[in-house]
Amino acid sequence: MKKHNFSAGPCILPQEVLKKASEAVVNFNGINLSLIEISHRSKEFVEVMENARSLVKELLDLPEGYSVLFLQGGASLEFLMTAYNLMKIDGKAAYFDTGAWSSKALKEAKLLGEVDVVASSKDKTYNYIPKDYTITNDVDYVHLTSNNTIYGTQFKEFPKSDALLVCDMSSDIFSRELDFSQFDLVYAGAQKNMGPAGTTLVIVKDEILGKTGRTIPSMLDYQIHISKDSMFNTPPVFPVYVSMLTLQWLKDLGGVKAIEKINKEKAALLYAEIDRNSQFKGFAEVEDRSAMNVTFNLTNEANQEVFDKLWNEAGISGIKGHRSVGGYRASIYNAMPIESVQVLINTMQQFEKQVHN
Amino acid sequence: MKKHNFSAGPCILPQEVLKKASEAVVNFNGINLSLIEISHRSKEFVEVMENARSLVKELLDLPEGYSVLFLQGGASLEFLMTAYNLMKIDGKAAYFDTGAWSSKALKEAKLLGEVDVVASSKDKTYNYIPKDYTITNDVDYVHLTSNNTIYGTQFKEFPKSDALLVCDMSSDIFSRELDFSQFDLVYAGAQKNMGPAGTTLVIVKDEILGKTGRTIPSMLDYQIHISKDSMFNTPPVFPVYVSMLTLQWLKDLGGVKAIEKINKEKAALLYAEIDRNSQFKGFAEVEDRSAMNVTFNLTNEANQEVFDKLWNEAGISGIKGHRSVGGYRASIYNAMPIESVQVLINTMQQFEKQVHN
Ligand SMILES: Cc1ncc(COP(=O)(O)O)c(C=O)c1O
Ligand SMILES: Cc1ncc(COP(=O)(O)O)c(C=O)c1O
Ligand SMILES: [Mg+2]
Ligand SMILES: [Mg+2]
Ligand SMILES: [Mg+2]
Ligand SMILES: [Mg+2]
Repeated sequence: MKKHNFSAGPCILPQEVLKKASEAVVNFNGINLSLIEISHRSKEFVEVMENARSLVKELLDLPEGYSVLFLQGGASLEFLMTAYNLMKIDGKAAYFDTGAWSSKALKEAKLLGEVDVVASSKDKTYNYIPKDYTITNDVDYVHLTSNNTIYGTQFKEFPKSDALLVCDMSSDIFSRELDFSQFDLVYAGAQKNMGPAGTTLVIVKDEILGKTGRTIPSMLDYQIHISKDSMFNTPPVFPVYVSMLTLQWLKDLGGVKAIEKINKEKAALLYAEIDRNSQFKGFAEVEDRSAMNVTFNLTNEANQEVFDKLWNEAGISGIKGHRSVGGYRASIYNAMPIESVQVLINTMQQFEKQVHN
Repeated sequence: MKKHNFSAGPCILPQEVLKKASEAVVNFNGINLSLIEISHRSKEFVEVMENARSLVKELLDLPEGYSVLFLQGGASLEFLMTAYNLMKIDGKAAYFDTGAWSSKALKEAKLLGEVDVVASSKDKTYNYIPKDYTITNDVDYVHLTSNNTIYGTQFKEFPKSDALLVCDMSSDIFSRELDFSQFDLVYAGAQKNMGPAGTTLVIVKDEILGKTGRTIPSMLDYQIHISKDSMFNTPPVFPVYVSMLTLQWLKDLGGVKAIEKINKEKAALLYAEIDRNSQFKGFAEVEDRSAMNVTFNLTNEANQEVFDKLWNEAGISGIKGHRSVGGYRASIYNAMPIESVQVLINTMQQFEKQVHN
């Protein structure tokens, strides 16, 4: 039975990407060797890395002066690396606290300097994006999480200030057109819109580096990784390759502009059903709703078993909400087809009929 | 044409492992979802992680009280993590400098404390293992690289002292039986004997942790990773899975004892040919020769093109020596069949005949 995979990450990837990735594991590009048994310094793999990098630049329309890295350690290691590379000695940074990931990020930054929490939505279980805040002039950088995977909220506008802007885009990168010149550093774990778990994309404006006065350990130093084209040490070959395939798929489909249109359509359909359906209510504030992670709850918790049985029977998987929010979360990333969203909507309608009888 | 893959890492993996890995990328265990699109918290993947961990314990016959982790960042991030977790504030550690990797490891440790280089073979381009050294009583730990991938040397005996013993086993773990109770911390990038690039195995004696007086960043803290069963953040799903398959393959084959016998046989054959053949000489001191990376040079450099043409025609790949040593390096890891070693030996003999005429 076909599965409708609404997992929050690792998550759905395009079928044709999975097929090509599977082939490369036995015979890569017809060279009679597996992708995963060749040297990362072979011309074959160096080409993969270069392609991946230039696809990122092209798809996001990056301005000149930005470097693209594929690292290891997940977005969680970036929580530390961003601070190591940007927080001056005796420095200070401004953090938006819009969810569990933001708050983990600021925890690591506190090890290296002062952290000013400029705004938080913790008071309402992070169900909104704070809009009332002041960024003081004395901070080295501002950090925010563009899309809050767990709570289903998303920044639509980004703060303007004189400080550097750092953004964790783990769960919405490549999903919508953005002016990247407003960001100084962007990072994202691959395992949502870009590829499998195991690599992290980092986009950094070169001129902001090397200014903290700190000695940075080699593996945490963006300048070292830049100088070695992401091959300071052995890169995570398979995750980088599958990311490259996924970015190629996105390009063939028309790029970020094209996918943004589809993403908006999918989100609009699903939120409309949540609002219309008497059995569901949305979790996030309407104006801050995420186009990637759609969070919702039952209006009557007592019917949970009935709904769970229905979606299970429909071949739906991965829609249980995060334990800190409860309810449901349908992650509708780039690779999620509109048909699967329709299957979920049909199931929600069937559920409403069933509990009304 | 069948390839004989002598690459130093990423490197050859068992054919049946590649086949199973390839299948899992399209349909994992018949669940109609790809391995790389399911949640790492799904029962299917949690089982993979648990299997991988228990295979490590079983294959290495680990004593009680050791934890097994699958992390990201490669062995290079461990250079930093070992120091972060073991070097006391104002502490000191003893490092053996037996090659480029040892020396990169000690460079990171210097950021956190004093480093005492107890012995170095740098004077002879690292072609031997120093045996004359004194470990003082005031060090927090002793660090060494068991197998020097680039130079083809290997520790046969390990130093005894009162200090903790830390070992980078990236290029010879699972290749020979060892008494692991002599080590307090062992780490290894997967991409030689364990799997594809993208995960790092760490084996650590629990009782040694938490004693430095340092605040350790979360992602660098072994105790945090242990408390979360290697799932503090999203693990590198595919590399961990393929490592599990490779460990299962090794177990089915008879375990470390069985592979050690085969490894010794392969190494003996190849070294015998190097010694016998008038056209080749070994790079490493005979008593320190590695059973994993066999380094050798031409006796007459002028014949290089002839030899390169021959091995290329024989379907051999990955035997060019590292740029810092030159010559040749045949990596004959666990998955390397004896038949491929024989093909190389035949080519060396053919070469000798050819240049003698
Ligand atoms: C927004 C965001 N940031 C950070 C992370 C942590 O990523 P990783 O598990 O790769 O460290 C996640 C994971 O889901 C996330 O959604
Ligand atoms: C002995 C040894 N240590 C460390 C490393 C570095 O490993 P990584 O590239 O995974 O950081 C290597 C890589 O070949 C190695 O052979
Ligand atoms: Mg969040
Ligand atoms: Mg409603
Ligand atoms: Mg070495
Ligand atoms: Mg000889």
